[in-house]
Amino acid sequence: MKASRLRFETGEYLARQAKTRKAMIDQGIDLLVIADPSNICWLTGYDAWSFYVYQCVVIGADAELFWFGRGIDAPAAHITTNLPDEDIVAYPDHYVQSADVHPTEYLAQVLKQRQLDRCRIGAEMDNYYQTYRGMHLLMECLPEASFVDSTALVNWQRAVKSPTEISYMRRAGEVIEKVYERVLEVAEPGIRKNDLIAEILHAGTRGTPEIYGDYAAIQPLISSGKEACACHLTWDDKPLQNNSGICLELAGAYHRYHCPVSRTLHFGTPPKKYRDIEAVILVAIELVLDMFRPGVRCGDIAEAFTQHIRRHGYEKDNRCGYSIGLSYPPDWGERTMSLRDIDDTPLEEGMCFHFMPGMWFDDWGFEITESLTVTPNGGQTLSQIPRHLFVK
Amino acid sequence: MKASRLRFETGEYLARQAKTRKAMIDQGIDLLVIADPSNICWLTGYDAWSFYVYQCVVIGADAELFWFGRGIDAPAAHITTNLPDEDIVAYPDHYVQSADVHPTEYLAQVLKQRQLDRCRIGAEMDNYYQTYRGMHLLMECLPEASFVDSTALVNWQRAVKSPTEISYMRRAGEVIEKVYERVLEVAEPGIRKNDLIAEILHAGTRGTPEIYGDYAAIQPLISSGKEACACHLTWDDKPLQNNSGICLELAGAYHRYHCPVSRTLHFGTPPKKYRDIEAVILVAIELVLDMFRPGVRCGDIAEAFTQHIRRHGYEKDNRCGYSIGLSYPPDWGERTMSLRDIDDTPLEEGMCFHFMPGMWFDDWGFEITESLTVTPNGGQTLSQIPRHLFVK
Repeated sequence: MKASRLRFETGEYLARQAKTRKAMIDQGIDLLVIADPSNICWLTGYDAWSFYVYQCVVIGADAELFWFGRGIDAPAAHITTNLPDEDIVAYPDHYVQSADVHPTEYLAQVLKQRQLDRCRIGAEMDNYYQTYRGMHLLMECLPEASFVDSTALVNWQRAVKSPTEISYMRRAGEVIEKVYERVLEVAEPGIRKNDLIAEILHAGTRGTPEIYGDYAAIQPLISSGKEACACHLTWDDKPLQNNSGICLELAGAYHRYHCPVSRTLHFGTPPKKYRDIEAVILVAIELVLDMFRPGVRCGDIAEAFTQHIRRHGYEKDNRCGYSIGLSYPPDWGERTMSLRDIDDTPLEEGMCFHFMPGMWFDDWGFEITESLTVTPNGGQTLSQIPRHLFVK
Repeated sequence: MKASRLRFETGEYLARQAKTRKAMIDQGIDLLVIADPSNICWLTGYDAWSFYVYQCVVIGADAELFWFGRGIDAPAAHITTNLPDEDIVAYPDHYVQSADVHPTEYLAQVLKQRQLDRCRIGAEMDNYYQTYRGMHLLMECLPEASFVDSTALVNWQRAVKSPTEISYMRRAGEVIEKVYERVLEVAEPGIRKNDLIAEILHAGTRGTPEIYGDYAAIQPLISSGKEACACHLTWDDKPLQNNSGICLELAGAYHRYHCPVSRTLHFGTPPKKYRDIEAVILVAIELVLDMFRPGVRCGDIAEAFTQHIRRHGYEKDNRCGYSIGLSYPPDWGERTMSLRDIDDTPLEEGMCFHFMPGMWFDDWGFEITESLTVTPNGGQTLSQIPRHLFVK
């Protein structure tokens, strides 16, 4: 059973751990408590829907590395990681969702037993899976440790993808291709939104005979008609109306790696405003794809995009993309780089982004987006989906 | 567009807000900052996949009530709530996922402008969507306020469901019935796990012609063969093997309300150990269903269950159920009551639970579970799914 689900060669995990340790040493951190499930999976392979209770991976700047979680989830750690038994540490079940005790109090005891309580500890203080109370109690229980905010320290190590990671993201790209093929087959006026989403989830989970579809970290987003002004709605059972636009934001996923792609579909002849914005966005995509080269700054891309749409009379007051990769709910973004003017990060080969030039107006919206990887020759899209307004 | 997606009558939302305010007054809390998307939705109707960035609802013990979130999500607040425009407050996009600024710093300004910064503020300090950093900055920016941990204050108000809520949970029950019908139709040795999950997601999203399927807060959990010792694994593409057991933990959902139900499926004649535990668990379910009456304590049910299985030589060292209702990822539990010996909460009519007597061993597992509502005549299940080991 040991490590029967490991998805990368052991050497790749060791390289990730070494890279993380180097960053810790550079920042003067002795011990890192990692609660972000994406970072846990990237460092060790651990993969299970157990992040609704407290869990973490603890990594030391030298040799320490252990998984800490709920007793009933230890078997998943045996199956999905190659950590030795003694480094799969479980807390008792009465610590689960209790007002009286917290798993981080138990973690503090474990750190003391391992003599890891008199050092500089980094923690992900701005992550969904590190609550205020859990952090506060850990600090209180370890008075001889000092604490530093290491939010996104590991996320940044993930920014440049390995060849195997990129191959997984391309497989996620093949999955999302299948999804949009299915959308074009079945979408028609009158069908309930949930019936279209059922086909999307079905195609996205079947994938191809060779490539399965994993779950995406964000559920399919669909907004239609006047509701297309809102970009993060999920579905209900309202029938899709003729002569209206539908925004879809969907991702293919493979081994937790994502390829998000948005498209807009219009039933009936699209009004001129759709054709106008389509033309502007398609040129914008060509323009910025060429810019995703090593050395270009995230902000350069955002500014080029903003200037381009501004010349055509459009404004977008929100970021036009973000770094992507391995993710768990609630976000398929990597929470490091954003494509916005204030982000000075220079691109490197192997980084991956969702370029997201979605535009939302008072009573409609328009989304054509691409996921891509940075190469010396510009951005290469991770999927090949017809890039235009879909009309049926 | 205003409130075009509201799912309960306005009076029901007002009653929920009044109930919450009464609890606040009882606990001496002037203002509550609610970041849990389930609580936000229950109080106002707000529903969108926007919880990957900071958002909250602020409710005062007297009249105050406003939504606070990212600019591009304000349209969803207009569509899904009936809050007046001035109570839909958006923060600028450069606050999103930034290492430099945090949305709670902006929230602090809003609270000051509304003169709500010199009072006793409750916050959900142990919730996924209230990070340490966000909480810490809010406290720092509001030096004249005092803060108290109000984790689960609203969750507790949700414990007893209204007739409309129970009708939604029964609809979720009809959705999960459709899912298991489909499982029994298509599951067979040799199909890839993801292909079975594709059918599960398809059936669970289509629902029935009258009842659509919403997304469940937890993705379908499947573990098969020796991996069935691990209860929270999701799928991969490994084919299901003949002569082996498969644990499925799935939920139907409707308007964000859940009905989770687990079943075990065995391909080929099940070994005696499956039949032995099946007999014990089926009697346990009958036994405890009869106990879900007002006044019985959560702990009484857990103890009756433990004693019953112990008489047959089994032990379960984790909780055997929890409160359910309206939920968002990562958990479909309500995070209030657990069915475990230390929980003294007395049951009330209209509470809903997932009774979860799952048992996991070294190299196999067994799950037959029911979701139910508490009535004076005992627990009524929210779905009617054949209650036995499925054999194909």
